[in-house]
Amino acid sequence: MLQPRSYRLLSSLSSAAPRSFVPAVSATLRCRSSRPYSIHADASVGTKIQGIDPSKLTIERTKTPKSLLPPEQLIFGRNFTDHMLSLEWTATEGWLPARITPYQNLSLDPATCVFHYAFECFEGMKAYKDKSGNIRLFRPDRNMARLNKSSARIALPTFDPEAMIDLIGKFVKLDERFIPDARGYSLYLRPTMIGTQRTLGVGPPASALLYVIASPVGPYYPTGFKAVSLEATDYAVRAWPGGVGDKKLGANYAPCIVPQMQAASRGFHQNLWLFGEEEYITEVGTMNLFVALKNKETGKPELLTAPLDGTILEGVTRDSVLGLARERLVPKGWNVVERKVTMKEIADAADEGRMMEVFGAGTAAIVSPVRRISWKGRMVECGLEDNVEAGPIAQQMKDWMEAIQYGDEEHPWR
Amino acid sequence: MLQPRSYRLLSSLSSAAPRSFVPAVSATLRCRSSRPYSIHADASVGTKIQGIDPSKLTIERTKTPKSLLPPEQLIFGRNFTDHMLSLEWTATEGWLPARITPYQNLSLDPATCVFHYAFECFEGMKAYKDKSGNIRLFRPDRNMARLNKSSARIALPTFDPEAMIDLIGKFVKLDERFIPDARGYSLYLRPTMIGTQRTLGVGPPASALLYVIASPVGPYYPTGFKAVSLEATDYAVRAWPGGVGDKKLGANYAPCIVPQMQAASRGFHQNLWLFGEEEYITEVGTMNLFVALKNKETGKPELLTAPLDGTILEGVTRDSVLGLARERLVPKGWNVVERKVTMKEIADAADEGRMMEVFGAGTAAIVSPVRRISWKGRMVECGLEDNVEAGPIAQQMKDWMEAIQYGDEEHPWR
Repeated sequence: MLQPRSYRLLSSLSSAAPRSFVPAVSATLRCRSSRPYSIHADASVGTKIQGIDPSKLTIERTKTPKSLLPPEQLIFGRNFTDHMLSLEWTATEGWLPARITPYQNLSLDPATCVFHYAFECFEGMKAYKDKSGNIRLFRPDRNMARLNKSSARIALPTFDPEAMIDLIGKFVKLDERFIPDARGYSLYLRPTMIGTQRTLGVGPPASALLYVIASPVGPYYPTGFKAVSLEATDYAVRAWPGGVGDKKLGANYAPCIVPQMQAASRGFHQNLWLFGEEEYITEVGTMNLFVALKNKETGKPELLTAPLDGTILEGVTRDSVLGLARERLVPKGWNVVERKVTMKEIADAADEGRMMEVFGAGTAAIVSPVRRISWKGRMVECGLEDNVEAGPIAQQMKDWMEAIQYGDEEHPWR
Repeated sequence: MLQPRSYRLLSSLSSAAPRSFVPAVSATLRCRSSRPYSIHADASVGTKIQGIDPSKLTIERTKTPKSLLPPEQLIFGRNFTDHMLSLEWTATEGWLPARITPYQNLSLDPATCVFHYAFECFEGMKAYKDKSGNIRLFRPDRNMARLNKSSARIALPTFDPEAMIDLIGKFVKLDERFIPDARGYSLYLRPTMIGTQRTLGVGPPASALLYVIASPVGPYYPTGFKAVSLEATDYAVRAWPGGVGDKKLGANYAPCIVPQMQAASRGFHQNLWLFGEEEYITEVGTMNLFVALKNKETGKPELLTAPLDGTILEGVTRDSVLGLARERLVPKGWNVVERKVTMKEIADAADEGRMMEVFGAGTAAIVSPVRRISWKGRMVECGLEDNVEAGPIAQQMKDWMEAIQYGDEEHPWR
């Protein structure tokens, strides 16, 4: 529709017009010609409406506590804890008091905008139990900052990260019995924001729901690393400059499933998403990608990953791997570089004996070693001997990360 | 996650493995270099599971019929009829019997995949009441074919279009009292498909829900055409070759809202989405765009619109406008051309006195005349005198379309 009906519609939803629905978007993207593009919330006004007040949290405990599954039967994202955390938002009232309730279905009008226009974004984060039985969240400030960016990009509300971390902490504490007391286990947390306005008009939602559910999970590799094979994908494109590939939106996921099924049908675990005629590597499945190789000129070892140019997700694990590499690999003579890397560079390194290792990085597996990549009808081997499932850097990163996550090592990220 | 956990997950959802979840995707896309790319469902097997059987429809009538709103109070997509049509699908059982029930909320687990990964697509179509009081659907086969394409592209199930049109006809008949008996009024139908699998694993949903809701609507321009102003948008990009911009997915909508709000804040009704360094025109808001101008060389009138190259929606109204133009304008000396058109061509035509008119085309408004386009700091005037709200072609198209939609003229599209 050309007429901005939705704006008029919004006003009719409540007696007062939405005074301050002002997503503060400020994402900088970069196009092929390197001209910077920006999405600024020029419409921002900033009238103060009610923020999240953690002191108003109400808790309704379940009357039918679930029995715990044996740890070895836990499946990612399939079983959930007793409770959920929910916060409703309206354009006129702001954030209503947070509630912890028994885990329960959402009841939504079939015209609700989340079902039609993908007003939805989420986060993936984990809570760990340390040796002393304390619960630790790993870099939750990063996840909350990213959720705010994602939400604002699709005209959903933002929130105070500190208040939300406070609430998530109370929720995890309440359900902590679901976290198995063993190394490799954790509680996967899924903060989710959805638009809940009941109208088919295409416009900024005047109401939203932010909720958090929690799924206990076991080690990603219960019997040790298992290297994967990738299919370099050019016929389907995950993200582009000026798009939303750097935000954790539902919109980025459904379109990737058919290419994933097609790669699987040809024997590959995941897609390696290429971009542009240059065939730059971007992401692998739903992880960021790291490549370790010896520099062609200097012979020095380099750890490479794609830059945050708007086409890849700003992974918290990616950032953590980069941080650890700069702190602990650079002193050993490594270069750690965020730059555009072509698929051809990777193939050349493999052909010339300069390839060291390749691995994905994400919340679920921390690191996921790559054995080979199918590209243009050939196989690019990624430096692993046949009987080896992970390179030394991938192994080192996993050990370093877990030591911080489980509190063996005191670190500001915990 | 690199490991194809979701595939294993699926098997655990029911005692039998999903035998035949085989979305038949066959979308051909074309990239910048004109090399054709295809997404084929190589994994297709085609084991037969239960299709839609309209004879198994059950109807539960509402016990609390709504009172009808005065026609002038109808707002697009805000008020709905008494009933809804729903069909559940599972990977193991196929389509379960269709149900017409009272309009009611959906109750879904908060882990349902539609909330997280945008497994959702929809259609917009209308039912009209003709002079004799008969209900007419306008080209429903087109909408059903497109819904199948959209659904398959995101690994949701497909269905028999004829069976679904049969069911929609019965649903509309049941709620026909909601269609005001006056020219310009109609029943907007919203077929919607969502993934309903209750797990956070990223993979093809093993269950889905197809539902249809209906909203009575009045004339888009109750007091006659009102020409709109557009902002040519290059900093945000709606679609990309190899992406899903040609499918009616929820994923294509939420990311467009902030740019729309920004255009509105600068006084423009909608975005005109440009693509690439060449600044090709693609879509306007959620409509296709038509440009009428005099050819620079020949002086002949031309009706231009962007081609179906994978970056624009395959609009049913677009196709209808093209069909009518070829049937009724070409004999009058017009050229009707689907080709890539740059923003500069439009500006040149305006500067050189060759611009005739510009209009959007979509289900809601049929045609929507454009007064001017803001581009690179200047205004491109689109051929309308100050006191005129529509050009002759836009007016003619609306009259021709309505004559068919309301059955004044017998036509195979009705």
